[in-house]
Amino acid sequence: MTARKATTTSRAAKAAGKSSSHVQFYDRDRLVLEDLTPTVAGGEFPAKRVVGDTVTVTATIYADGHEQLAAELRWRRVGDKSWQRKAMTQLPNDRWSADFALERMGPHEYVVEGWLDAFGGFRRDFAKKLAAGVAQPVDEAEGRALVEQAAGTAKGKIASALKGKLAALDKASGDSRAAVLLDEALAQTMRDADTRPHALCSAPQKVDAERLEARFSSWYELFPRSMTQDPQRHGTFADVIDHLPRVRDMGFDTLYFPPIHPIGRTNRKGPNNTLTPGQDDPGSPYAIGSAEGGHDAIHPELGTFEDFDRLVAAAAEHGLEIALDFAIQAAPDHPWLTEHPGWFAWRPDGSMKYAENPPKKYQDIVNVDFYGPDARPGLWEALRDVVLLWVDHGVKTFRVDNPHTKPLPFWEWMIGEVRAKHPEVIFLSEAFTRPTMMYRLAKIGFSQSYTYFTWRNEKQELIDYITELTTEAPREFYRPHFFVNTPDINPGFLQTGGRPAHRIRAVLAATLSGLWGVYSGFELCDATPLGPGKEEYLDSEKFEIRPRQWRSDNDIVEDITRLNQLRRDNEALQTHLNTRFYAADNPNVLWYGKPSPAAGNEGGDSTEMIAVMVSLDPHNAQECHFDVPLWEFGLPDDGSVAVEDLFGGYRFDWHGKVQHIRLDPDEPFRMWRISAPGVQA
Amino acid sequence: MTARKATTTSRAAKAAGKSSSHVQFYDRDRLVLEDLTPTVAGGEFPAKRVVGDTVTVTATIYADGHEQLAAELRWRRVGDKSWQRKAMTQLPNDRWSADFALERMGPHEYVVEGWLDAFGGFRRDFAKKLAAGVAQPVDEAEGRALVEQAAGTAKGKIASALKGKLAALDKASGDSRAAVLLDEALAQTMRDADTRPHALCSAPQKVDAERLEARFSSWYELFPRSMTQDPQRHGTFADVIDHLPRVRDMGFDTLYFPPIHPIGRTNRKGPNNTLTPGQDDPGSPYAIGSAEGGHDAIHPELGTFEDFDRLVAAAAEHGLEIALDFAIQAAPDHPWLTEHPGWFAWRPDGSMKYAENPPKKYQDIVNVDFYGPDARPGLWEALRDVVLLWVDHGVKTFRVDNPHTKPLPFWEWMIGEVRAKHPEVIFLSEAFTRPTMMYRLAKIGFSQSYTYFTWRNEKQELIDYITELTTEAPREFYRPHFFVNTPDINPGFLQTGGRPAHRIRAVLAATLSGLWGVYSGFELCDATPLGPGKEEYLDSEKFEIRPRQWRSDNDIVEDITRLNQLRRDNEALQTHLNTRFYAADNPNVLWYGKPSPAAGNEGGDSTEMIAVMVSLDPHNAQECHFDVPLWEFGLPDDGSVAVEDLFGGYRFDWHGKVQHIRLDPDEPFRMWRISAPGVQA
Repeated sequence: MTARKATTTSRAAKAAGKSSSHVQFYDRDRLVLEDLTPTVAGGEFPAKRVVGDTVTVTATIYADGHEQLAAELRWRRVGDKSWQRKAMTQLPNDRWSADFALERMGPHEYVVEGWLDAFGGFRRDFAKKLAAGVAQPVDEAEGRALVEQAAGTAKGKIASALKGKLAALDKASGDSRAAVLLDEALAQTMRDADTRPHALCSAPQKVDAERLEARFSSWYELFPRSMTQDPQRHGTFADVIDHLPRVRDMGFDTLYFPPIHPIGRTNRKGPNNTLTPGQDDPGSPYAIGSAEGGHDAIHPELGTFEDFDRLVAAAAEHGLEIALDFAIQAAPDHPWLTEHPGWFAWRPDGSMKYAENPPKKYQDIVNVDFYGPDARPGLWEALRDVVLLWVDHGVKTFRVDNPHTKPLPFWEWMIGEVRAKHPEVIFLSEAFTRPTMMYRLAKIGFSQSYTYFTWRNEKQELIDYITELTTEAPREFYRPHFFVNTPDINPGFLQTGGRPAHRIRAVLAATLSGLWGVYSGFELCDATPLGPGKEEYLDSEKFEIRPRQWRSDNDIVEDITRLNQLRRDNEALQTHLNTRFYAADNPNVLWYGKPSPAAGNEGGDSTEMIAVMVSLDPHNAQECHFDVPLWEFGLPDDGSVAVEDLFGGYRFDWHGKVQHIRLDPDEPFRMWRISAPGVQA
Repeated sequence: MTARKATTTSRAAKAAGKSSSHVQFYDRDRLVLEDLTPTVAGGEFPAKRVVGDTVTVTATIYADGHEQLAAELRWRRVGDKSWQRKAMTQLPNDRWSADFALERMGPHEYVVEGWLDAFGGFRRDFAKKLAAGVAQPVDEAEGRALVEQAAGTAKGKIASALKGKLAALDKASGDSRAAVLLDEALAQTMRDADTRPHALCSAPQKVDAERLEARFSSWYELFPRSMTQDPQRHGTFADVIDHLPRVRDMGFDTLYFPPIHPIGRTNRKGPNNTLTPGQDDPGSPYAIGSAEGGHDAIHPELGTFEDFDRLVAAAAEHGLEIALDFAIQAAPDHPWLTEHPGWFAWRPDGSMKYAENPPKKYQDIVNVDFYGPDARPGLWEALRDVVLLWVDHGVKTFRVDNPHTKPLPFWEWMIGEVRAKHPEVIFLSEAFTRPTMMYRLAKIGFSQSYTYFTWRNEKQELIDYITELTTEAPREFYRPHFFVNTPDINPGFLQTGGRPAHRIRAVLAATLSGLWGVYSGFELCDATPLGPGKEEYLDSEKFEIRPRQWRSDNDIVEDITRLNQLRRDNEALQTHLNTRFYAADNPNVLWYGKPSPAAGNEGGDSTEMIAVMVSLDPHNAQECHFDVPLWEFGLPDDGSVAVEDLFGGYRFDWHGKVQHIRLDPDEPFRMWRISAPGVQA
């Protein structure tokens, strides 16, 4: 046999350290310890949680025969010297469980240990025999022998206590001997004295405790340069400060900017991604770097570092945090090209490859070469230091552009380095690619990820996608960030569905996930495409300054404001994990509930839930019968629940499981708080 | 960060051997290699196959960006010095695949390696650019640079070949330069020269190649002592020889005996498990050991070792192999109790615990203590040597009694020791306990296992159980052995359902799994219970000699004979893995198909299948509409298939997807061969 994986380690095997294959087997683990949860890739990566969460650990532990086992959970924040420990509870089918609270931010680890509980087994069997009236003197003698053996190996107070018990036992007679043997104090002392025969310990499993915003935040994206009423006047950080109240009034708490660095001149793009810009066209902020500097500099027209610091401070005063874009690419006039030519890949003719993501072409940017001649460690450390620079300026959240086109080891290393110093930093992965890669980026360190949500408009595909994220392996490590639009993605559903479509997508994003995002203009139902069949916006802000009127008769600011308010007020809306879909007999109506979490843990049962009924059709009225999930409240099919309409404010009761509703395009959704009888809504 | 599991190893990491955490990360695997199949518990245990099988290996391999990758499968029989290798084929979604044939019995291992295929990527992109008419001279220069670089690192013939190609390239002009660069011979030489940048290799995965009977065999169980017409005359091995033609004529190929060792006298059981035996009662053969010897001896009334050898030889002449019971327990007068008291657990009063499996009690046997003072290695090796003794007498299959009450490390070690010398030996696990333990026994070495089939009589529970075994993790390591009855299990369904019930259970067992078993008496529809609500047989052979009349008007010998004939003639019936359930609109009718395997591989597509329609109701007629699985043949819903009734012998066609049938208690099932049009049935 070849070596087996070290998923578990036994004391016996360690203690033995013998080389004969016989002895190895004889001393090999008698117990089996498997199916630990939570675990990601067998312990290779951390399960993701937030501070304040309770982590419920379960494992399957068993051995041959009918022996009694015992198990213990041990956990610590990585770096702590000592472990905390707690006995695990035995559940049916060899499952064991215990939980621990995450009190501090940062990486944690836990192990589970199981062993043969000889005295526990004696107590179990002896009590049964006593109850059946078949206990024999030899049964008592077996119990006494176990205590005597423990007294011989124990030390100090424990040994004294056990010897006292032995004396008491020898003095006692008849029924009182049994009482001494089954005494809980003796059981506890025996547990303290236990040498844990056949002990088997799991490999360490990782849990990352992040701050709440890793799981729950409402994002708003804007281009600072557009915060102007005059397309000829470049918006500044000072202008952004004037917009903070508007953003905060809508209930957002993260304000995210595309890159704020100097923009390259070479091959600069003109309006609508044209290759023939005018002299005054501002170019794409993703073409990073010019004579004025690179990733560690600020585009001069936006302001200075002092201006930026003022903006960060002002945002904080409004309860907003600033998120920046981290886009690893360079305009051809980025200083790095001349300062560090060994960080780039040059073609045989001395030219450079421009970035491409077929069929898109980015003629204004070139990619670094992470494995170029001078890239390690120079480029890697420079990129890390760019992030740390912005962290020092108060930025704790980074939206990372296209991380799947950069090496995975770079991200794991860089995020690890940053979060070792600043565990509060959050990285959002902007990867739109195959699921394996998107999940891998989450495993190696990204707290959140963009998703396929933007293109999921049909009932079954929404159910399938959310079900995958909430019930399969990704639930432990992948936090979906549901953006309704981005500067690059103007979804067809919004282009053709008007205001009802915007409201539908807003309620879906804001209630299906703890993380949702809006790129400015969405609240104005501005969805004019570059052209028929195009997913880009017309007159995209990526290539021009775009002043807007921030209120109109057509806007959905009030919907967004109410959604964000409900999200803040209801813990049930702060995670995707508690989403459960229910039956509604219309393929255009999505119907789901989110039970209120018990005691701050993700998921869990409740006597209350937020429920959402959404028509997916922005054009026509849709009617359906639907199931009221009475069973979630332990109620029969003819039971009643109290309902509060969370947009209308009125209250009513539902009697019976099957109800009917009609959703019109001008009121395409309902949000209700459903409460079990006797619970005050 | 704590250490991660060695699921994959990279050349770079090995070569580096550096200690700085920076360097470790910089050199860390750029590729990801995950989701290998087949694999059991991440490579800890072997996937089970039989000689002649083709193993299809798949893996998900990817890296950042749009780089071209390549992958290779390497495999060998454990012990072989060199690996065989084959390029893997890229499938959609980053999956890669290749297969290898198992040509010899015994343990095999395989690894998958992926790497960055720089020249492959050049060829892919250059061909695309040529096709689009946008290739530039610098593209050719890039290809030439790759060849030049390879020529510099390659040696011998490969280097010479590459230098020749470079010269040809430099002489060529225009279109012919592109042709040289895209030439398949150059591509092959470049593959031979490839230094495999960013190579990443999986941990070894195990595959066990057993003989066919590990997956496909039809078992018949009898008590040799009952092979007599006179209950006063103990049957002998010589008597069993007389029964071989009868057993073989029914189509069985494994003949299994309960223990054949001397039977203890102390606490011997009387008829029907009573505790007051008469002087001449033979006792239970599971009470092993007496003054005449233990597990390495033969009960004198059965015969001698010479008689046993004659029986084994005679069985082989009839195409039958003998399977023995391996029951690790001792009668109180087993020689080991006096010779090796340190192999047993003694109570404080000097008495011994008798075996119990609550509520059953076995007063006639005591258990060994695998962790007793002298048990390691003495007891473990003695037990192994018992098995090896019987292997030397021609026994290659062992049914192991209650393995879940003995330590798992013992089984893994013992089975490993035996099969290292005799890879043809098969162990069947008689464990009826929780699924985790039953699956664990399969993982650690048991080729086959008893199952819950014996108690699954309802349509949905049969579907659920078979689906778990054929589509979830157990499919790789757990081979279910479907016994219709055992000396311990006289199922209620048979007690109350008479002959139709016996026919129903026979066809289910014989067609759902490659392994099925019959305990003698079943073919006579003998199902009289010990009493109402009891699962034991009345006058059980475990406690008395039981002569029988082997044919009667009520027997189902012809059904069994036909089933075993069909199993031998149709590879589709030699595994459980190809079972697919189809719709039949009656909860008492089970309807399933088994596609004929393509090219000897388990599962796979076919233009032919064996299909089985079974009523689960032995008392009433059942009718249903059912779906003909036309889609399995690529046919539309109004297509036609040719059908052969495998019991009636007649042929007909089905036109259209929905058909109707009525199943009467006296003809409760049908077996059909279904063929696509144009295929001769």
